[in-house]
Amino acid sequence: MTGISTFRKHASDVINWIIDYYKNIKAYPVKSVVKPREIFNQLPAKPPEHGEKFDTLLEDLNKIIIPGMTHWQHPDFFAYFPANTSFPSILGEMITAALGAQCMKWETSPAAAELEEMMMNWLKQMTGLPQAFHGVIQDTASTATLCAILTARESLSDFKINSEGYSGQQFRVYCSEEAHSSVEKAVKIAGIGSRNLIKIKTDAVFALIPEELEKAIKRDVESGLTPLCVVAALGTTGSTAVDPLEQISKITKKFGIWLHIDAAYAGSALILPEYRWMIKGIENADSFVFNPHKWLFINFDCSAYFVQSKEKLVHTFRLVPEYLKTSTDGEVNDYSDWGIQLGRRFRALKLWFVLRSFGIIGLQEKLRTHISLARFFADEITKTGSFKLMAPVNFGLVCFRYVPEGSMGKKELDELNERLLHEINDSGKIYLSHTRLNGEYTLRIQTNQTSVTHENVMEAIKLIEDAASGITANYE
Amino acid sequence: MTGISTFRKHASDVINWIIDYYKNIKAYPVKSVVKPREIFNQLPAKPPEHGEKFDTLLEDLNKIIIPGMTHWQHPDFFAYFPANTSFPSILGEMITAALGAQCMKWETSPAAAELEEMMMNWLKQMTGLPQAFHGVIQDTASTATLCAILTARESLSDFKINSEGYSGQQFRVYCSEEAHSSVEKAVKIAGIGSRNLIKIKTDAVFALIPEELEKAIKRDVESGLTPLCVVAALGTTGSTAVDPLEQISKITKKFGIWLHIDAAYAGSALILPEYRWMIKGIENADSFVFNPHKWLFINFDCSAYFVQSKEKLVHTFRLVPEYLKTSTDGEVNDYSDWGIQLGRRFRALKLWFVLRSFGIIGLQEKLRTHISLARFFADEITKTGSFKLMAPVNFGLVCFRYVPEGSMGKKELDELNERLLHEINDSGKIYLSHTRLNGEYTLRIQTNQTSVTHENVMEAIKLIEDAASGITANYE
Repeated sequence: MTGISTFRKHASDVINWIIDYYKNIKAYPVKSVVKPREIFNQLPAKPPEHGEKFDTLLEDLNKIIIPGMTHWQHPDFFAYFPANTSFPSILGEMITAALGAQCMKWETSPAAAELEEMMMNWLKQMTGLPQAFHGVIQDTASTATLCAILTARESLSDFKINSEGYSGQQFRVYCSEEAHSSVEKAVKIAGIGSRNLIKIKTDAVFALIPEELEKAIKRDVESGLTPLCVVAALGTTGSTAVDPLEQISKITKKFGIWLHIDAAYAGSALILPEYRWMIKGIENADSFVFNPHKWLFINFDCSAYFVQSKEKLVHTFRLVPEYLKTSTDGEVNDYSDWGIQLGRRFRALKLWFVLRSFGIIGLQEKLRTHISLARFFADEITKTGSFKLMAPVNFGLVCFRYVPEGSMGKKELDELNERLLHEINDSGKIYLSHTRLNGEYTLRIQTNQTSVTHENVMEAIKLIEDAASGITANYE
Repeated sequence: MTGISTFRKHASDVINWIIDYYKNIKAYPVKSVVKPREIFNQLPAKPPEHGEKFDTLLEDLNKIIIPGMTHWQHPDFFAYFPANTSFPSILGEMITAALGAQCMKWETSPAAAELEEMMMNWLKQMTGLPQAFHGVIQDTASTATLCAILTARESLSDFKINSEGYSGQQFRVYCSEEAHSSVEKAVKIAGIGSRNLIKIKTDAVFALIPEELEKAIKRDVESGLTPLCVVAALGTTGSTAVDPLEQISKITKKFGIWLHIDAAYAGSALILPEYRWMIKGIENADSFVFNPHKWLFINFDCSAYFVQSKEKLVHTFRLVPEYLKTSTDGEVNDYSDWGIQLGRRFRALKLWFVLRSFGIIGLQEKLRTHISLARFFADEITKTGSFKLMAPVNFGLVCFRYVPEGSMGKKELDELNERLLHEINDSGKIYLSHTRLNGEYTLRIQTNQTSVTHENVMEAIKLIEDAASGITANYE
């Protein structure tokens, strides 16, 4: 069951399983319809004494697990942001799993460290980031943002909090009201306290208002507080709003504050020259993160984190106990010194496979298609006047709301849209998610799934319109 | 290049590649012999404009990457601790990659969340952990230990540092001198300061001396400092020393201090009843981590983190912005609330595959074999009197040192052993690592690689003895 002699047969079964899964994926409800404990209760409460046959595992996978999965690679998956994979990425993951290398230090896998460095260089070129930046793969943007805030904290405190702990500093961190919750999580973990995270007002398109930022910083300085870091968002989670980086970067420069950029989703769009306006001012940023595992067809996890100063990053995290000393310490990039975890998977491999399999042009084509699908959806859904857009369509996400004729109040419309979302999702046919914009319940549809087509989007439009009509009929 | 039509062919090529890799693995130098930049300089400095053929990728994998890999799955890999994989685990990773599910919330993949819960229950039973503990998969023990210290910080501060930041508290964290560097990393990240990490003296077998711990705590209390957390190690990284948990747990109970247990490597040995003595007193622990990705044949990353109170853990990390609200919030386990990262891979699947493929008895057999190989190595290497053991052989690791006849001083012996290590590793035939025990340079050999055999260990003994003779001859 566990040896190489049977691996060929089992691997071949798994490949067939994967191909069948992708071929038949439309047959699955995209969002699982199971109830809490439904899967759990089907699993034996005790582990087996003796090894079982692999066939049994695959049977149980089909019988027990798959009905409980939400299918993120389904072309009708329109929820959240995508967690795209692609076949070259899956092939890369297979080899990474087989090599089973622990890529903590350069010496524990030189090729992994050097491929990682080169892939980060490729991404810099593809996205137009400054060549002087240094890149490292992190697991998630949450972790990268935490690294940024910790490095800011240490740089500003002359690396003293690391060694001596807090002693009376009250730092302030700034982001927009629409910034991702990971900023607050990082501020808490770093010991800064969430009340010291100042959420700056946004404008009509949900982007941070730089004048408000500057006012807040000045107020804090006058009160004797210490502005530490601004997190600017390029593509917020709610509506993909783009904070005005150039103006923000002038403010952070003026006040000597760390500037971190969270472009988790929209950073991938920088491979399109028409989006490079977003990063005007980036040379003044201290750190930048985007997630190839969202919209660049790379399996999760693969978050690309770039910093202006690798010395500051390494100074924040590096610790070399005797058992981790190698003869190349200090000469090479030991990436475990570039973040929180010591252990690291060989994640650069799938990046290499995907970038080479698609090529820049292939990736650009995919992204432009996705963006045009979002625009198409926005145009179509608003045609009858029953739906309105809640935010500009900047990338591949549309924020919209059902506003049928009649004189419903805000609260009624909120409830109606929430019911509409659940009805749509419970159908299992498509999967959307939601947010609130200006306090209003808003439906979100992203059209960036690896295999999404024009037809999928047309079907989604019809389904949403039909569900809306149905729900209004019931409502009346 | 990127579609399903070619995937069958490419996947079949990859499977053949994996099988060939494992069949021929003995032909590779176990530790890569490349020099810094040797791999980097072979990689094109620019990403390709157009997609390339998969065959080219596999060719380059063989030509450029593989010579730069250190082969962690090589049966002659004796360095560090193992990062074991196994064929059922690789098969699990393949399916996880293909499903590409983002398992952040229960709703985003109910089966992943519920399988994770059950697998953690299985591990509890297999290792004899209290049934009342709650388990969650983390990426690494570093992250788990950070989670423990953060939860301790928040519990003790009534969750106020999260919200208000530090205000004058000076916490103290305790571990032994031999504890892993991740404890210090966590203390720094949490804002406690490394000077507040008190490293307690160890005894003749490198285990924490509980009387010294109690003294240190008392001294701190008298000085007005706040003891926060004790990290006990079951199986230190240097020498696999086992801290006396029962005595430590009485002290932490008495003083109301958080007790976290780092059993990263040796926790797997708890599947053997003869090792259960280690966890006497565990019912008084607040948190416990061990890494199935080290010694339970599960691909990295898969760190099993258990807590007494899931409420405290969730209270420390939970944040639910509107775009992440689901209708099951609060009713189910949303595992992104149990740690730092929001995004999560479907890691429970490989655990399920491995536990079922081996069965408890199959895993126990593997571990007992590994332990007996370590004992065999220790017996053999010390026979001639030229090598001495530097620590007891508690599990599958032997700490030893070359002490040839003659009157060499400590420093000379340190240098000799360091040269011996490099000579052995540079041969590419086996790969050992080192540490310092009582300040003395010590060679480490772990005999826990998935496929290691008696023959591999015999060859290693011969190789080490020959290299030692050679180096002494040169030295004289």
